Amino acid sequence: MTTIDVLKALANERRLRILDWLKDPTRHFPPQVDGDLERDGVCALYIAEKLGMSQPSAGEHLKVLASADLVIGTRIKQWVFYRRNEQRIEEVRAAMKDL
Amino acid sequence: MTTIDVLKALANERRLRILDWLKDPTRHFPPQVDGDLERDGVCALYIAEKLGMSQPSAGEHLKVLASADLVIGTRIKQWVFYRRNEQRIEEVRAAMKDL
Repeated sequence: MTTIDVLKALANERRLRILDWLKDPTRHFPPQVDGDLERDGVCALYIAEKLGMSQPSAGEHLKVLASADLVIGTRIKQWVFYRRNEQRIEEVRAAMKDL
Repeated sequence: MTTIDVLKALANERRLRILDWLKDPTRHFPPQVDGDLERDGVCALYIAEKLGMSQPSAGEHLKVLASADLVIGTRIKQWVFYRRNEQRIEEVRAAMKDL
């Protein structure tokens, strides 16, 4: 994953919104039966619903973010939960300092 | 110009290289007859040559950077000279802090 790939992953309104929501999952999403919002992240279904998108379309955005390591997906039962990868996001900020 | 447009403008290897070269024009480009390298920027012809691209192709990349306000173009005679817009680049860094 190069800086270019990360920039491409970020260059999308919906993906930036997802990253923003995941900063404070409890504020933006309802409680979950499986998966702790803060520890495991947010179920892809809830993210799709909040985006107002079908599950496959939202899933594409989540895949792009995950491929760029900006989010981390955790599978619990049949669902995938996503949380921010703060370490990677910090690396992106550091790379931007060299811009 | 939104953050998205700026990220798209940055998400390209050649455009990142141009921005990098323009940090230190004297080091990366030969002296110019017209236009002071540091004050006015680098002639688009020299940038095209250093990229190993045709003038129109290089011009497209420069247009993308200029549309995103990341570089400033100055016309002198029949040429356009490009320099970094440090203020805008600083704004991008600041926006990345909120990522």
